[in-house]
Amino acid sequence: MKKLINDPLNVANELVEGLVDAYNGEAVYVGARSLVLKNIQDGKVALLVGGGSGHEPIYHGLVGRNLADGAACGDIFAAPPPDIVLEATQAVNRGKGVLYLYGNYAGDVMNFDIGSELADEEGIPVKTVLIWDDVASAPPTEKHKRRGIAGLVPVVKLAGAASQTATSLESLEATARKAVLQTRSVGVALAPGAIPATGKPTFDLEEDKIGLGMGIHGEQGVAELPMQTADDLTPMMLNLIFEDFEKDAEVAPLSAGDEIVFFVNSLGATTMMECLICLRKARQFLTERGLIIHDVIVGPLVTCQEMAGISFSITRLDKELKPLWDMPCQSFCYSKMAGSWGA
Amino acid sequence: MKKLINDPLNVANELVEGLVDAYNGEAVYVGARSLVLKNIQDGKVALLVGGGSGHEPIYHGLVGRNLADGAACGDIFAAPPPDIVLEATQAVNRGKGVLYLYGNYAGDVMNFDIGSELADEEGIPVKTVLIWDDVASAPPTEKHKRRGIAGLVPVVKLAGAASQTATSLESLEATARKAVLQTRSVGVALAPGAIPATGKPTFDLEEDKIGLGMGIHGEQGVAELPMQTADDLTPMMLNLIFEDFEKDAEVAPLSAGDEIVFFVNSLGATTMMECLICLRKARQFLTERGLIIHDVIVGPLVTCQEMAGISFSITRLDKELKPLWDMPCQSFCYSKMAGSWGA
Repeated sequence: MKKLINDPLNVANELVEGLVDAYNGEAVYVGARSLVLKNIQDGKVALLVGGGSGHEPIYHGLVGRNLADGAACGDIFAAPPPDIVLEATQAVNRGKGVLYLYGNYAGDVMNFDIGSELADEEGIPVKTVLIWDDVASAPPTEKHKRRGIAGLVPVVKLAGAASQTATSLESLEATARKAVLQTRSVGVALAPGAIPATGKPTFDLEEDKIGLGMGIHGEQGVAELPMQTADDLTPMMLNLIFEDFEKDAEVAPLSAGDEIVFFVNSLGATTMMECLICLRKARQFLTERGLIIHDVIVGPLVTCQEMAGISFSITRLDKELKPLWDMPCQSFCYSKMAGSWGA
Repeated sequence: MKKLINDPLNVANELVEGLVDAYNGEAVYVGARSLVLKNIQDGKVALLVGGGSGHEPIYHGLVGRNLADGAACGDIFAAPPPDIVLEATQAVNRGKGVLYLYGNYAGDVMNFDIGSELADEEGIPVKTVLIWDDVASAPPTEKHKRRGIAGLVPVVKLAGAASQTATSLESLEATARKAVLQTRSVGVALAPGAIPATGKPTFDLEEDKIGLGMGIHGEQGVAELPMQTADDLTPMMLNLIFEDFEKDAEVAPLSAGDEIVFFVNSLGATTMMECLICLRKARQFLTERGLIIHDVIVGPLVTCQEMAGISFSITRLDKELKPLWDMPCQSFCYSKMAGSWGA
């Protein structure tokens, strides 16, 4: 696979440098490899995200206005080391503590937890909320085993908005936890991406097969399906999300009248065209069940190099989350302007 | 190439339906295949874009707030037929006329021109501005032969902002023409995308070659280069843009102190990671020459299915264009919030 890079072993550093360039002065490079907003308000409860590189525009692309204050950036597909977590924590802290919000992967949990202990030694209070939206990765009774996938975008959007007015670390933690609880995703893989250092595919998948529930690095899914049409695959994927809300004692089932944000993510090479064709079928499915689609996101936001595949994420809004969703925001990954459309 | 579609011959209609779903009520499907804002202010000079489908999020994804009022959508890689141009024209017209703004391709020019004549018969004044930013497609003395590529995004952004306050069709035309004149791009192809109807690649390119100046459908470029590093390729591409401003008697050379918008576009499968690594080198190049980077765009906005490749676009701002650039906007393709960053 041809890639426009330089030293294959230095891509993570160079892409974060490029990301700082993309922020054009509004975010700065801190320490070994953290990206932090240039201006963070004094007394603000800070929001820190992070994770491995190679999934751009996440995770570090979620640093922004009304979004995350900073990101601790790992090497390609690798968790940020604890010293990077610590340096990012120090850089975003404004005296009210720091919420860590990131996808539930063992390496990330280990390193962020050590970072949290190091921060505690320096007197910086830290709370952690894990994102585990991938319903295919474990049953609802074992949510601690679930992976974080595309749902992290709506979750960070909501938590970022909440962090603008949160009066305490605990209140921001509670809002982020609610956003996670109400966000569920399911994904499919069609073809692997290539590891920058080797040019080798991240996993194998037969040419006529779809990996249902495969993780963004090719982690085990729930089934291998034959290649099929968008209109056949879409309801099958959405049913898994509906069943998960149904089976999970911690949340109400998805019901008529519920307001949701619906997110169609491309894992990289899957085109916007395909995402839109799937969205068309998904909207039929969702509206037939009486859901009210408050907003839609479509795009290659949570990627794994030139991997092909898509995921659907549903975030259910309530009276607290809806105005948070409607706040404008701006970042490398996701932006929207304030107010309603119309003349 | 696996694609998540249904009937391969119906992808254009289905993707535009999906795009309407993505606009979630703010844009509507009109006639045979046009996408138009639901609310367009009375007395507004209207802006209409359009072109072939299969390049999502452009062209129809540029319909939005402070952007285009509507888009006439063609079939995959095909110009919209004149009747679709006419229906879109009727739908966006608010009594002050309609500016057509689209990429310079023979089929589009023919069909939009016929659409313009049909509109004229109905008493709707139309002006046309062609986008021809691809400096590799013809010398500066033959700009009428140049193709429109990624530069259409900044051009439509500027014209869309101008259309909010334009008092006449002629004044909007003049602003759009200036935006085109000050926008230049150069692209490279690394690998083809696949035509949805056939699954066949749009062109051939050897595994170790880069097509410098190739068009987004594989149109002839200026040279085939050996595969090389991001840091070698980036200055070579930027030099072509600088030389073009230098050689063109209609514009001043790019000079120290000029304020620009810099846009790194991915043609589809090329990752954000690669775009960022190229951006890092490009910023060094641009700042060494004293250019002031006012804003940066990065992303897969002008695509050709899962084609691999990138382009760079430079738009030089002046006192008129800079505040237009700074207006917030929202669309499927490109959004930004109002105001400056910072605490």
